[in-house]
Order: sequence, then structure tokens, then C-alpha cells
Amino acid sequence: MARDTTRRRERRTKSGGPQQLSWRAVENPYKPIEVLTPEQVEKIHDASLRVLRDLGMEFLNDRAMDLLEKAGARVDRASKRVRFDPAMVMQHVGKAPSRFTLHARNPAHDLAIGGNAAVFSAVASAPNCSDMDGGRRPGNHVDYQNLLRLAQSLNIVHLCAGYPVEPIDLPAATRHLDCYYDYITLTDKVWHPYSLGAQRIIDALAMDRIARGIGVEEQIAKPALITIVNTNSPLRLDGPMIEGLFEMAEHGQVVCVTPFTLSGAMAPVTLAGALVQQNAEALAAITLCQLVRPGTPVMYGGFTSNVDMKSGAPAFGTPEYARAALAGGQLARRYSIPYRSSNANACTIVDAQAAYESEMSVWSAVMGHANLVMHAAGWMEGGLVASFEKMVVDAEILQMMAEFLRPIEVTEETMGISAMEEVGPGGHYFGAAHTLERYETAFYSPILSDWRNFETWRLDGAKTAFDRANAIYKELLVAYEPPPIDPGIDEALKDYVGKRKAEPIAA
Amino acid sequence: MARDTTRRRERRTKSGGPQQLSWRAVENPYKPIEVLTPEQVEKIHDASLRVLRDLGMEFLNDRAMDLLEKAGARVDRASKRVRFDPAMVMQHVGKAPSRFTLHARNPAHDLAIGGNAAVFSAVASAPNCSDMDGGRRPGNHVDYQNLLRLAQSLNIVHLCAGYPVEPIDLPAATRHLDCYYDYITLTDKVWHPYSLGAQRIIDALAMDRIARGIGVEEQIAKPALITIVNTNSPLRLDGPMIEGLFEMAEHGQVVCVTPFTLSGAMAPVTLAGALVQQNAEALAAITLCQLVRPGTPVMYGGFTSNVDMKSGAPAFGTPEYARAALAGGQLARRYSIPYRSSNANACTIVDAQAAYESEMSVWSAVMGHANLVMHAAGWMEGGLVASFEKMVVDAEILQMMAEFLRPIEVTEETMGISAMEEVGPGGHYFGAAHTLERYETAFYSPILSDWRNFETWRLDGAKTAFDRANAIYKELLVAYEPPPIDPGIDEALKDYVGKRKAEPIAA
Repeated sequence: MARDTTRRRERRTKSGGPQQLSWRAVENPYKPIEVLTPEQVEKIHDASLRVLRDLGMEFLNDRAMDLLEKAGARVDRASKRVRFDPAMVMQHVGKAPSRFTLHARNPAHDLAIGGNAAVFSAVASAPNCSDMDGGRRPGNHVDYQNLLRLAQSLNIVHLCAGYPVEPIDLPAATRHLDCYYDYITLTDKVWHPYSLGAQRIIDALAMDRIARGIGVEEQIAKPALITIVNTNSPLRLDGPMIEGLFEMAEHGQVVCVTPFTLSGAMAPVTLAGALVQQNAEALAAITLCQLVRPGTPVMYGGFTSNVDMKSGAPAFGTPEYARAALAGGQLARRYSIPYRSSNANACTIVDAQAAYESEMSVWSAVMGHANLVMHAAGWMEGGLVASFEKMVVDAEILQMMAEFLRPIEVTEETMGISAMEEVGPGGHYFGAAHTLERYETAFYSPILSDWRNFETWRLDGAKTAFDRANAIYKELLVAYEPPPIDPGIDEALKDYVGKRKAEPIAA
Repeated sequence: MARDTTRRRERRTKSGGPQQLSWRAVENPYKPIEVLTPEQVEKIHDASLRVLRDLGMEFLNDRAMDLLEKAGARVDRASKRVRFDPAMVMQHVGKAPSRFTLHARNPAHDLAIGGNAAVFSAVASAPNCSDMDGGRRPGNHVDYQNLLRLAQSLNIVHLCAGYPVEPIDLPAATRHLDCYYDYITLTDKVWHPYSLGAQRIIDALAMDRIARGIGVEEQIAKPALITIVNTNSPLRLDGPMIEGLFEMAEHGQVVCVTPFTLSGAMAPVTLAGALVQQNAEALAAITLCQLVRPGTPVMYGGFTSNVDMKSGAPAFGTPEYARAALAGGQLARRYSIPYRSSNANACTIVDAQAAYESEMSVWSAVMGHANLVMHAAGWMEGGLVASFEKMVVDAEILQMMAEFLRPIEVTEETMGISAMEEVGPGGHYFGAAHTLERYETAFYSPILSDWRNFETWRLDGAKTAFDRANAIYKELLVAYEPPPIDPGIDEALKDYVGKRKAEPIAA
């Protein structure tokens, strides 16, 4: 009964609060869903290399153009257009590792990236946040910190790949220093600096070294930071993004390249066209990473969705989104590069639509073998809002997927013929020995779902999942305890932030 | 642009009401998700045959025991226990067809069953119904009729495999006659009589012949009726169910055998055990169908879920449910018998939980290659309620799945390199020729989802999906028009019902 023991352990929560699964590395033992035939994958691959050869891509950064030109690309300095030889692209893309580990301050929270492993990130980069009590409001430091506390408390949330909400009440020039300090002290999970110029990355690297008590060499050998590099689709990579990319790649940290290819707006209106463009942009930026430092850990990000052609509004969790997410996984596997997808939706409130759009995204991410599911908990309104209640709803959705991914055990004991003999035709299993030995840990126990009968539910206030999620996120915050940190390290982090705030800040 | 033309046609709705997809046969072109290894499938198969050989199953009907005994089964008359030789089971199960057609009164609504085809049934057999205005109430004739009208109006609902709600205000003894008359006249889709004694089936067969203007021979050759035969798990099939089964099988109509194996209650607490028992019960009842009439079209139904071990309440759309649904598909395919699964949830209100539980069920059904998804639209509270609003939410979920199952077209044209050339780096595709040619039909257009921005949504009343579904179901009812019927046939149906009501009714 090894499995049952594991389960029983999982029911205990270290820090109180609602019952939840314990921290767990999630592996997908099932084969991915393939929506493209192998021939279609090759067609998209070939077309994207043709795009890079004939149309090329703009790199708005001289250092990048120098490096690419030196490696054999044709560079038009006036238009900043870089055209790539297909063989050169494949040569450098081939240097990216297929697996690596993202190291956390707490080694128990290290993340294996690649293969069948899946990690789930909290919502990132929302300009607004919301909860039932305070409504929708611009991002601020208090909410930023509380969302980090939730991300730390929810065991199914493996990392924070971006500020859950932008704390716009902090001064823009030094905001990242306060945010990094919060990341490191309020959580002990993997975190993410924005690739917006070199300085933000330099500060992140410095603070990560302090947090882990290591030098540059060990930092390079054991990457801890992940950043998202979005292309400015179509076919452009902007200057500050490239500057950050250089710092990250030079220090062996993880660059997750994610073209933002909204079909019909920044990419062709056809899914195949959007995928060709996504693939071209991803390969071009990954090539740059590998030129900066061969072997730099990178991820292939897919974010292809469609817009509502009536309003131009982006849509997520749509049938198009789901197929693109699964196709993206096939393309990433074509290059043996870990894949990133997202839990996306375009809903304004935590209702049935939010859930069915998120489920479309999560099923496609997980069954596309996404190794990183960004925005896995808390994302709403196409990224405009981080929702406290949605974080709890998504935690349930993610926990359910994690349990779904546990293979069925088929042994003589679990097939339970002895129980059938004991119970016999027309009986029931509630009191059977086979049941009593296992019932406590036999099934997934939800964090949010309410299975009580109608009358009980009605008499208890007829609460929706939205209502219950509101109560649960507050319970989590009450039970929250900051992860332990060495006081000397904490002091050193504070010193770094203080010293850097006193310096003139580069843009 | 053959595909775009198809799409454009689909946008037009025949009878007004909200925009929706047109009637469509749904095929799943992707490989099923397999949660069991081939070896595990064989283990479960072997164990279930051992159960039938050693434990056997109770058949509470003399005619069934006679038939089974004659075919070689060992029958204990006192306990009504029938024990099967494995070879005998496999011999008769092998006679079941792997594909067949269910014929509707309107041939445009005929249903191909088997292979990769999936059909979606409306909610069935709920004792209660509910909507936002009237709340939760016992089933009644008016609601029964209105739910049928919705099932007819929603093109993604392919059939009514049971009364959407039980009209308990109709006299029990003749209720089925009124219900059949409504099925036939308010819809022109495939319908379902309950297998509760012979008479209900005899009446259904008679009224189907009148409705289609055919004789018994053609009826046998072109089955129109489907009934669900639930085992009384564990390991028992009751008398009235068997009587109906005989009538259906003798007339070549479709018997969908569905063990109701709630793990922890009516089946072992382990998933493997529940699947062994499900498989044993399904194979036993299918064997009986094939003995009654070799070649009878049958389906292999899976309904394995778990109970909440704290309260004993059934749970649906759980991780256990999802794995069992996918495993059930593997078992059905093991015997080349069409597979039935369900869109199940245990939620009391149309909220995020209802949607995420339903999505777990629908993804598992569809990716398990279920050929029939029962309760696909409108089911709530583990089957206790048929919800008008959930019917609309589910129609959206099903439409999204149907669109998700359309393979991506990868051609030189759809890869859109010409569009990328036209737009160039940093541009946008809204005005590109490639976009203008396609934008009207490029993407799925929802029936329920609201993608407007927050302010617009807020000023329009901040409606949830539940609110909007309420308005949409009413629009559908307003726009509803009964499908045409020959007045002579209508008269003959009325005569039949009248004549039968005047007769003494068998129990």
C-alpha cells in the first residue's frame, strides 16, 4: 500500500488552511494529443524556415545584429531585418538542452523541466487584480504581496513566472527591487525577472546569488531564474527584450521564448499561418539565445489564439486556442525543446465561462505535454486581471489534472475480486474489508468543489464556487506563514535593495 | 475555400434564435487518450471473465435464465445466479456489430454510431428541473415539453436518450404514451423508451412504426430506438429491465448496456476493481442481447465514478471519473463495440464547478472516443436536476468540442506566407487581403461566451454565464417551431395513444 501512504501524507497541510494536495512534481504518463499529422508538422517547420530565410525578422538591437551577422545571417542594418539560412537555424536550435532543472531557494521546490514533467505557474503580469469584496482595481503592492502569499500557500502552484499583478504604486524605476525582495522572502519557489533592459536582469542575478548564497559559476551551473521573451509579433524582437535576453543567456538562466501570435491581429487569420509565424519567431529568438551562449536553457512558448473578428477582442480557451496549444507542443517536440503553454480565458467574472475556457486551455496544455503552464492559477480577462478567487478555482482544476495523471493501478489486489465475493450481487461495498482498508485515501478530495445535496447546500447559504473560493483564499492568507530564511541572507537582500535604490537607476 | 463555404452556411439558423452551429455529425480525428496499458486492458478483461465464471451474475427473469442455460451457462435457479464460461461470453459478444445507424423520423437526423463518430444526447431521467426564474422543482409535463423543444432547437444536441425530466404530473401508467407522442411531434430526432417491462417497449415500437410509416421488418433493419439497460450493480440485472431488453433486442433496436458502478458504493473502492465489475456486468448483459437476437446493435456503457467517502454522496467529473471514462473506451474498443459515456457533474448551481466538472467529463468522453455522450446537455446534481441554463452552457461546451475536432488545414494558402509578406514585421493583419477573404468564417463564434471588455460588460449589467444562458434558453423557446409532420401520421399517433389509454394497462 505504498501509494495509500503517500496519499495520507498529502492530506496533512504543513501550515494549516484548507486541505490540499501536498507539493508534487507532476508527470504526464499518457501520450500527447496530436492534432497535426507528422507531415503537417514538417510542412509548418519548412514554411517557418522559408519565412526566416526570405522575409527574415527584425532584431532592434545592434549587439544582436552583430552576433547574428557573425554567425552567417544576412543583416540589413537600415531595416534591422535579419535573414537566416535554415541550416544555421537548425544548427543553433539543436544546441538547446531538452531537459534542465530550475533551482529554487528551497531545494524541495526545484523544478524538473522537460520530458513529461509539467509545472504550473501563478498568474503573471496582470495590470489589475480583483476579488469579490474589493472588486476590480489597479495592481498595487499589497495585492501583489497577497497574491505571492497565495502562490506560496497553494502547493499545486510550482512557481511565480512574473509579477502576479503589477504593483503600480511602487516607483517604476525601483519597483523590480521591491518585487524581487518579496518574491524571495514571501515565497521559496522559482521566480521570474522581466527581460526589459539589462539592469533588471543584473539585479535579479545578484539577488538570486545572495538568496542562494552562491557565486556566478554555481549560478550558471544551477539556473534559478526564468524570463519570458515575447516577440513583438509579427517578426520583430524589440531592444529592451534583447538586452535582457543577453544577460539571462550569458548567465545560463532560462529564456522562455513566446511569440504572441493572435491569429487575425498579429498573425495570419488561419491557424496554420499563425503556427508558421509562431514557429519562425520562436526559432529565431532561440537561435539568438544559443549564439549568446551555446547550451542556454530555453523553452518554446506557444501563445497562438484568435481574436473576435467582430470586435478585435482577443479570445482564449477557444477551439482554435486548444488546437494551437496542442500543435505547439508537437512543434516544440520536433526540436526537443521544453514547451510552454498557458491556462488562458477571456472571462470577466469567475463563472461557468471562466471555468470552461480555462479547462479548454488546461486540457490542451497538459495533453500537449506542456512542461510549463503559465498563468495556471488566477488569470482572467485575457490577462488584464489577476483574480484571488480564480486562483482557488484554478488550484482545484490543476489538482484535478494532477490526480487525473496518476495511472490506474491494476493488480490482483486492486481488481478487488475478493471484495466482489464478500459483497455479492445486489450488495454494497461501504462496509467491505477491501473498502475499509482504503476508503480514507481512495479518492481525490477537493479544495473547492461542493458535493453536498441541494437542501444542505441551500441551507448553508447556496454558495457558488465563486463565493466559496472567496472564503478559501482568505483562509489561505490567514494560515500563511513566510518560508524560513537565514537572517543574514535577509539582511543582505535588504542591503542590496537599499544600496541599489540609492544609486542612479538605468532605464 | 470549400471549408469557409460550409462555415458560412452554418451561421444561418433555420428557425431564428441565437446563432449556433448547424446540425453536424461529429467525428473525432485524433487518437483516443489511453490511460491503461494494453496489458492492463487484458488484465481487466481476464479478471472480469473470471468474475462471470466464478461469481456469476443474477438475472431476475426466468426467460433470461432459460436462454442463458440453453446457451451453456450454469444457472442456479434458487439464487438466480448465472455463471458463464469465458469462451461463451466472447463468442456472443463477438456477434455485436461495431457500427450501426440510429434512424430518426427526419432522416437528416439519422445518427452513425461507432468508429470515430460522437453523438450528444440531452439530459435524461432527472426527477427535477430548474431554471433561474422558477428555481428547483419536481419534473412536470410543461417543463418536459420545453426541454424537448430546447433539445430540438439546439443543433449540437443529436438525440433525446431519455425523458429530459420525469413529468410526474402525468399518470404513471400512461405517462410513456404522452411522452412518446411529445418526443415524436416536438422533435424529429432519435428518442428513447425506458426498458421497464415489455409494454413500454411494445408501445414505443408501435409508435415508431407509425411515425416512420414502416412495418416491423423495416423497423428491424433500420433501428430507431435506443434504450439504456442499467445493471443493478453489483452483479444483478433486474426483471423489468430484462423484459424491455427482450423486446428491444427481438426488434433489432439498440440496447445500451450501462453498469452503474459507483466506486466505493456499488463497486470496489479501487478504480481497477470498479472497471473489472463494470466490464463483467456489461459483457454479461451484452451476451444476453446477442442470445436474444444475434447481431442486435448494442453499446458498451461506462458510468464508473466515485462517491465522496465522507458523505457517501456520488461525485462526477472527478479525476477518478475521467480516468474511468477513458479506460471504459479502451475496454469497449477491446470488443469493437460502440462506447457510451456521459457529461456528468455533481454541482447544484450553474457556476464554475458545474463547468469544470462537466469539462472533465466531456474531454474524457470525447477523447475516450465515446460514440454516445449521454446527458451531454443540461445534467446537474449527479442527475437529480435538468437545468435549462445548463443546457445552454453545455451546448457551448459541446460546440467548442465539435470545433476542436476539426483538423487544422495546412496548405500553402493557409500557411499564409503571402500575408506575412504583405503585413511585414511589426504590422497587423486586420486589413490584409488574406484576412479579409476569411475573417467572417475563420473562427468559432460562441453561443454564450462574452468576450467584451470589462467596462462594456459591466455597463450591460455584469451578467454571468448563468444569467446569459437564462436569456438564451428563452430566446430559443420563443424561436422554436415544431418540426413538420404529416397530419395523417399525427392523427394516427393520437389514435394510438387514445386507444391505448382506454385499454387496461399492464404494469
